[in-house]
Amino acid sequence: MIDVKIGLAQYNPTVGAFQNNVVQMAGLALKAREKGCELVIFPELAISGYPPLDLLERREFIQENLRATDRLMSEVKGIAVLYGCVSLNTKGGGKPIYNTAVLFEDGKVLARVHKRLLPSYDIFDEARYFEPGTECEPVNLKGLSLGITICEDIWNDSDVFSERHYSVNPVAELAEKGADVFITINSSPFDVEKAASRYRILSRLAGKYHSLFLYINAVGGQDCLIFDGGSMAVDLTGKIIAQTKDFAEDLVTVDTDTGQGEKHKVSSSREEAVVKALRLGLKDYTGRCGFSKVILGLSGGIDSSVTAVVAAQAIGPANVLGVIMPSPYTSEASIEDAEALARKLGIQTIVIPISGIFDSYLKTLEPFFKGKGRDVTEENIQARIRGNLLMAISNKFGHLVLSTGNKSELAVGYCTLYGDLSGGFALISDLPKTMVYKVAVYLNSEKEIIPGRVLTKAPSAELRPGQKDQDYLPPYDIMDAILEKYLEQNTPPDRIIAEGFHSNTVYRIIQMVDRSEYKRQQVPMGPRVTTRAFGYGRRYPVCHGYRRQAENTG
Amino acid sequence: MIDVKIGLAQYNPTVGAFQNNVVQMAGLALKAREKGCELVIFPELAISGYPPLDLLERREFIQENLRATDRLMSEVKGIAVLYGCVSLNTKGGGKPIYNTAVLFEDGKVLARVHKRLLPSYDIFDEARYFEPGTECEPVNLKGLSLGITICEDIWNDSDVFSERHYSVNPVAELAEKGADVFITINSSPFDVEKAASRYRILSRLAGKYHSLFLYINAVGGQDCLIFDGGSMAVDLTGKIIAQTKDFAEDLVTVDTDTGQGEKHKVSSSREEAVVKALRLGLKDYTGRCGFSKVILGLSGGIDSSVTAVVAAQAIGPANVLGVIMPSPYTSEASIEDAEALARKLGIQTIVIPISGIFDSYLKTLEPFFKGKGRDVTEENIQARIRGNLLMAISNKFGHLVLSTGNKSELAVGYCTLYGDLSGGFALISDLPKTMVYKVAVYLNSEKEIIPGRVLTKAPSAELRPGQKDQDYLPPYDIMDAILEKYLEQNTPPDRIIAEGFHSNTVYRIIQMVDRSEYKRQQVPMGPRVTTRAFGYGRRYPVCHGYRRQAENTG
Repeated sequence: MIDVKIGLAQYNPTVGAFQNNVVQMAGLALKAREKGCELVIFPELAISGYPPLDLLERREFIQENLRATDRLMSEVKGIAVLYGCVSLNTKGGGKPIYNTAVLFEDGKVLARVHKRLLPSYDIFDEARYFEPGTECEPVNLKGLSLGITICEDIWNDSDVFSERHYSVNPVAELAEKGADVFITINSSPFDVEKAASRYRILSRLAGKYHSLFLYINAVGGQDCLIFDGGSMAVDLTGKIIAQTKDFAEDLVTVDTDTGQGEKHKVSSSREEAVVKALRLGLKDYTGRCGFSKVILGLSGGIDSSVTAVVAAQAIGPANVLGVIMPSPYTSEASIEDAEALARKLGIQTIVIPISGIFDSYLKTLEPFFKGKGRDVTEENIQARIRGNLLMAISNKFGHLVLSTGNKSELAVGYCTLYGDLSGGFALISDLPKTMVYKVAVYLNSEKEIIPGRVLTKAPSAELRPGQKDQDYLPPYDIMDAILEKYLEQNTPPDRIIAEGFHSNTVYRIIQMVDRSEYKRQQVPMGPRVTTRAFGYGRRYPVCHGYRRQAENTG
Repeated sequence: MIDVKIGLAQYNPTVGAFQNNVVQMAGLALKAREKGCELVIFPELAISGYPPLDLLERREFIQENLRATDRLMSEVKGIAVLYGCVSLNTKGGGKPIYNTAVLFEDGKVLARVHKRLLPSYDIFDEARYFEPGTECEPVNLKGLSLGITICEDIWNDSDVFSERHYSVNPVAELAEKGADVFITINSSPFDVEKAASRYRILSRLAGKYHSLFLYINAVGGQDCLIFDGGSMAVDLTGKIIAQTKDFAEDLVTVDTDTGQGEKHKVSSSREEAVVKALRLGLKDYTGRCGFSKVILGLSGGIDSSVTAVVAAQAIGPANVLGVIMPSPYTSEASIEDAEALARKLGIQTIVIPISGIFDSYLKTLEPFFKGKGRDVTEENIQARIRGNLLMAISNKFGHLVLSTGNKSELAVGYCTLYGDLSGGFALISDLPKTMVYKVAVYLNSEKEIIPGRVLTKAPSAELRPGQKDQDYLPPYDIMDAILEKYLEQNTPPDRIIAEGFHSNTVYRIIQMVDRSEYKRQQVPMGPRVTTRAFGYGRRYPVCHGYRRQAENTG
C-alpha cells in the first residue's frame, strides 16, 4: 500500500460558533501539516458542532455553515482535509439538507459523501433533519482508495450486529468497490460501554474487510452529551496502531503503509472514564453558558460529596461554593462530614439554617392544614426551601446551581420537584446510586477526600426523624440491577423476574418509574454516562393507561 | 358508484389502555352496524392510542397491542372494520414495527396497509419507531376500490404542497391503480391552523383525483397534544358531505354513492376552538393522571383569570381552588379582581399572604446579601414562595397545580423557574399574550365572567413597587408578531426586520428567546395550540455559540 501520513484531529467544536470552529480547525490542520501529514481528518459536523438540533431548521444557520466551510477551504492549503458539515439537498423532494463529509485539497473539493444511515433512536434524531445519502464510491487520494463513511454508516454490518436497523451496509459496498483504507468521521457520544463497542466494531470490520480503519471522533460537552474522543486507527489484525487521548483535544498521526502511529493513553477504568466525562461536561457547560462559579448544597451525603469533588476538579475549588443548610432533622454527623469534605477540597462553605423559613411556612399554612398529620408535604417544603436558597444566591451572585441527585432516585421519583431537583446542571443525575459509590471510592483512591463515614453510613434524606432511604426503597444494589434492565435494556418485567428478582420488587419499581415520569420532565439536564439516560433520549408519555393507575402529586 | 354506508367513528383512545380501547371500539362498531353501516373506520393507532412514544420500544407493549387487535377482530362481526394498530416487521432489517391500517370483516383480514410517509418534524418522531411501508394497492370491498392511507401519506401531493418532504406520493399511486374512494385514517393533533389546512388538502385532492375522500381523526388530550377530531367526507366538488363534531367523540355516516351524510356542528371561531382544546386537554390530563381537583394562584391578572375560567368549565367550578397570595406589592385592585372572578365562577378561594415567609427568607439571607441592592433575586423569591405554597397544598390534598403563564412570557423568559412555572399542567402556556386577551373576550362574550378591569389594566407581575410588564418588554402586539415569525415560521431575523420591525427590537427578542432556553427545559407541559409550541416539538440546545454570548441565571 502507498504510504500516506494521516492526522487524526480530535477537536472540541462549539455548536454554532462557526468563526471559532473554523479558526480551531485551521490551526489543527496547520499543525498536522507541520507533522508531515498529507491528510488531516476531523469529526462529523465539525463545522457546526454536534448536535445542532433544531438550529438545523434555520436557513440562516445553514448559510453560515456553508460560508464557514468556504472559509476553511480558503484558509488551509498544502494538506488534504476531510471534515463534516451540513450541505444542501438540491435534488428536490425530501429533507433540505445532508450530513456530509467533504474532502478538499488546495481549494478544490475532491469528494462529498452524504451520510446514508441516519440514527433515529435514543438521543439521535437525524431523520428529523437530514435526507439520507444514496450512493457510496471510494475516493482516490494520493493513490489510496478511501472508503469514507459517517458514524452510523459503519453500525450495520451483518457480521457485527445481530439486530440491523437498516437495509443497506455502506462498508460492504465500499469494500466491494475496492476501498483499501476506511475512514469514518464521527460525533459519537460517550457512555460507559461505548469505548468497548467502538473497538469491537472497528476490529471486526478491519478483520472482515482486510483493511485499515481510521476512526475520528469529536470531544467536548454539549448539553447532556459528552463526546469522549477516543479516536484511533485499527489495522487488519485488530491492533490499535494510533490512538488519541480520551476526553481531551488531541492530534495523532498514522502511516497507512508502515502502520506507524502515535498512541496516547486513555482511561483505564470505568470510574476514571465517568469522572473525566463529568468534569468535561461541567467544564464545557459552564464555559459555554458563561458561568465561572458553581454552587451546591452540601448535605454530608455521598451524592453531594461526589458532586462537589468532581466540580472542584473540573473548574477549580475556588469556583465552588458549598452551602450547608441544616434543618432540625439534620444530624451533627452530616454537618461534620460536609465541613470535613469542604476543608479537604479547599472549597468555601456557608451555613444557612432553614428552620426559620420552615417555621414561617408551617405557621402560614397552619390554618389550612388543621387536623391533618405531617406527611411528605413537610418534607418537600424543606427540600424546596433549600432549592430556593441556592437559587437566590445564584440570582444574586451569578453561580450556576448544581443539583446533586443520582439516577436511581430520579428513576423512582425519590426526589422533590423545585427542591433538590432545582438547578441548571444535574452533574450525577445519570449515575445509578451504586455507581456513585464506586466513583467515590475511585475519587478517594489516591488520598481520602470524601470522609470515610460518608461511604459507609446508611443513605438518608434527613427530612424527618430517623429517616433512611432503605425504609422506603429496596436495597440500592437490587434496585439498580432492576432499573438497568428495565430502563437501559427495555427488558419486559416477566423476564426480569425470570432472571431471579422478586416479582413484587420488580413491579413496585416499575410502577415508581412510570408514576414519576412527570417529575423527570421538569428536571435540569445532566451528562449522559449510561447506555440510556433520562432526558430527550428517553421519551415516555406522562398520561397513559399502560400497566398502571396513575397519580401524581409531589 | 356502488352505494356503501360508512361510519366515521371518531373516538378518544387512551395510550396503552388496550382493554378499554377495544371495548370502546367494539361498542362504536356495533353502533355503526345498527345505523346500517357496512364499514366503520377508526383513527390511526386506534388500538394503542397516539403517540405511545417510547412505549413502542417495549416488546410487551407491542405484544399487548397485537392481542388487543385479535380481541377486536373476534368481537366485532357483521360489519367491516378499518382501524390503525402497530404491526410487526418480519422482513428482517430496518425498524421492528409498522404503523398499520387493518381492514377486517367477520374475523378475516382483508388488507394490511403500512404507513409510507413517516413524519419526523415538530412533535412527530415516527422514523424513530416505524419502518416505512413500500407498497400501496387499492383494496376491494363490496365493489368499491378503496385507497387506504395513513395520515402523513396524503401530505405530499405536488399540487397541494410547495415543499415536499418525501419523494413518493401514495395518493397518486393509488389513484393510478384505480382507487375510487380514498380513506385516510389519522391521529392528527390540533393547532389553530389545522382545520383549515385539512379541508384545503382534502378538497384539493378530491378535486384532483375526482374521488370521495373520507378523513377520520382521533379526539382527546394526550399530554401536550390535543386531537380535535374534525373527521369528514369531502366529495369531488370539495363539498363536505359528512362531518363529526370537533373536540368530542362522535359517529357520523356517509353513503358513497348518494353522497348522503350526517353533518354535525364544529367550532365557528378560532377562540372557540382554542377554548375547547384547552378544556379537552385539561379534562383528559386530569382524568388520566388520576386527579379530580386543580389548584391555581389567582393574581387578578388576565392569565390566571383565563386559566381559572377554562378550568372551571372543563372540570366544574367545585373542583377548582383559587389561591390568592398577596405580597406587599399586590394592589388592592388585584385582590378585588381575583375575588370578583372567583365569585362569578363559583370557585372556592383561600387567601394566603406571603409576607411572613418572604420576611423570613430576607432575614435568613441578610448576612450573605449585605451591601447588595435589591434585584430580580427578591422578585424570584416571592414567585417561588407562591409556587411552593401551591405545591404544599397539592401535596397535602391531592390537587393538580395549574401554572398560569402564557407563551409570550415563556418565550422571552419573563417568568420564574420553581415559581410561577411550578405545576403539573401549564394550561395556557402555548397561548401568546395577545391570544390570551382574545380568548378572554370570547369567554366574556355571553356574559361577563372576567371583570372588565382585568382586560383593560396594564399587565404587571407586581413583584416590586409600580412594576409593569411593558417597562421591561416590548408591547405585546409587536412582540407576539415577531415571536410568531421567529418561533413558528423560522423566519431569519433579517427578513423579520425587512417586514418592518425595528432591528433592535427583533434582535433583543431573539436574544431573550435564546437565553431562556434553559428555563423552558424545566417547565410543566401544556396543551399545544399554535403551529409550533415549546416542549418536545421544538428542540434547541441550551449551550451553543450561535448568535449569542450566553448567560443563564434566574
